[in-house]
Amino acid sequence: MFHLLDIIGTMAFAMSGALTAMHKKLDPFGVFIIAFVTAVGGGTLRDIMIGRTPVGWMLDVNYVYVIVVGFILAILFRKKFDSLRTSLFFFDTIGLGVFTLIGLEKGINIGLHPAICIALGTLTACFGGVIRDILCTEIPVIFRKEIYATICIFGGIVFFMLRKLNLDADVLYLTTSLFIISIRLMAVKFKWHLSPLSYK
Amino acid sequence: MFHLLDIIGTMAFAMSGALTAMHKKLDPFGVFIIAFVTAVGGGTLRDIMIGRTPVGWMLDVNYVYVIVVGFILAILFRKKFDSLRTSLFFFDTIGLGVFTLIGLEKGINIGLHPAICIALGTLTACFGGVIRDILCTEIPVIFRKEIYATICIFGGIVFFMLRKLNLDADVLYLTTSLFIISIRLMAVKFKWHLSPLSYK
Amino acid sequence: MFHLLDIIGTMAFAMSGALTAMHKKLDPFGVFIIAFVTAVGGGTLRDIMIGRTPVGWMLDVNYVYVIVVGFILAILFRKKFDSLRTSLFFFDTIGLGVFTLIGLEKGINIGLHPAICIALGTLTACFGGVIRDILCTEIPVIFRKEIYATICIFGGIVFFMLRKLNLDADVLYLTTSLFIISIRLMAVKFKWHLSPLSYK
Repeated sequence: MFHLLDIIGTMAFAMSGALTAMHKKLDPFGVFIIAFVTAVGGGTLRDIMIGRTPVGWMLDVNYVYVIVVGFILAILFRKKFDSLRTSLFFFDTIGLGVFTLIGLEKGINIGLHPAICIALGTLTACFGGVIRDILCTEIPVIFRKEIYATICIFGGIVFFMLRKLNLDADVLYLTTSLFIISIRLMAVKFKWHLSPLSYK
Repeated sequence: MFHLLDIIGTMAFAMSGALTAMHKKLDPFGVFIIAFVTAVGGGTLRDIMIGRTPVGWMLDVNYVYVIVVGFILAILFRKKFDSLRTSLFFFDTIGLGVFTLIGLEKGINIGLHPAICIALGTLTACFGGVIRDILCTEIPVIFRKEIYATICIFGGIVFFMLRKLNLDADVLYLTTSLFIISIRLMAVKFKWHLSPLSYK
Repeated sequence: MFHLLDIIGTMAFAMSGALTAMHKKLDPFGVFIIAFVTAVGGGTLRDIMIGRTPVGWMLDVNYVYVIVVGFILAILFRKKFDSLRTSLFFFDTIGLGVFTLIGLEKGINIGLHPAICIALGTLTACFGGVIRDILCTEIPVIFRKEIYATICIFGGIVFFMLRKLNLDADVLYLTTSLFIISIRLMAVKFKWHLSPLSYK
């Protein structure tokens, strides 16, 4: 089941990248590359930093197929995007929950400190979007709007608190993912956000 | 012979980086750094992602010398650049062909799937220029103009098709490089490009 | 003593990142991330390129604590920043000297060519700031103003010249650090800088 969610998250991230790139009037190749890096960028950066190379997507060509499908879907349905916005947002939120947990898990597997594992989870979930925005020369949206990454950090903290209860691994993963997903849904519904600090 | 082409490609990429940076009015140090990352950026990213570290240019100081020469040439001849544009374009195209093949080869050597090898070749050839444009805060030119990276992808597909014919390795490399180089020359001569997708 | 300087440098870099991000009106999470990458970015890139993974800060959670402290200090004192500018500049300069030497040392430890070691030292000291500026979509300040990175390169050359004298390691490190720090102080006091090259 976890693998299925990974596929859904990858596809949703690819679609969100493709849609951003089309907005920026990139050519189809540029759209594909942005879709690709949005989908695999966070995981690639994580793998590079922990020395797990060749990085994940290079060893499993299925990621490429999933991204190609996401790219084609984004192109085909780009004019209907407004009515699709809700579904895309929902998939993206699933991706956020799943990718945070995958990052946490990789960190735990190599024995890193919980705070570092949480950083890895957040990086896995958020840095695809950061690279997407940098390639489109925008200040990354997660630094400006919504509490996107903050939710990953809290999700990570909840994960390590629940972990002390010796829950079954599946229950632990599912609970944390659902926590992240529901907080994100509430955050957007109730427009939670952090204000910039006043500087002068 | 391949090594000589590698040197020509590296120098051409260094010069293209230096010229872009001078246009942006960077100071000479900034110009040097941009020349450096344009020349080695694609290969560095490839090596990092496949875990071939320390990355290539760190183990062979000749790359540094070649880049320094390219940097100095770009500075000396910067005012004559318009008349040099054709030669620089030609060197850059050789670099494109050679770097794509070097990337393909590294992927094959570690047994990656052909689609991933093609991604590695494209990344090796194109991401130096992407990093150059990001450091100069421009949307990377390969996402907007010309079919630069698309040619690398097609070159990679041709490579794997020819490879099934059991050609001699040298013939295979030379044919694919020449294919990439001639398609690029034609693409620019006949102004082939991909149009942005209409979005609304 | 070297470790103490490392902490001071990390904290100064975190504060400089946080202050830049607050100027850009990022939300507090964005400010924290920019503080983080400014502090560890150069060392992370160095470790990735030489294959020293998991990268340094992942193995020592103290870096995270130091950065959190720097982040909080930057927020608390942000309105008094003008009067703090001198102290921050001084810490940042210490960071520059220390980080250059740490980079040089890592390169020497794995037997790289002196020119490559100097590149590693410069990268360690400067690329945190480059990543900071890219995430804020500005052309990196070190390519435009001040002779920041040029000082690291000269510091590296001085290091390898002094090294031939068979000095005690501590003396060698201290002398080079002090050389870098004093040149930077003089560079800013006397407004030394490199001019952009005239292009047309």
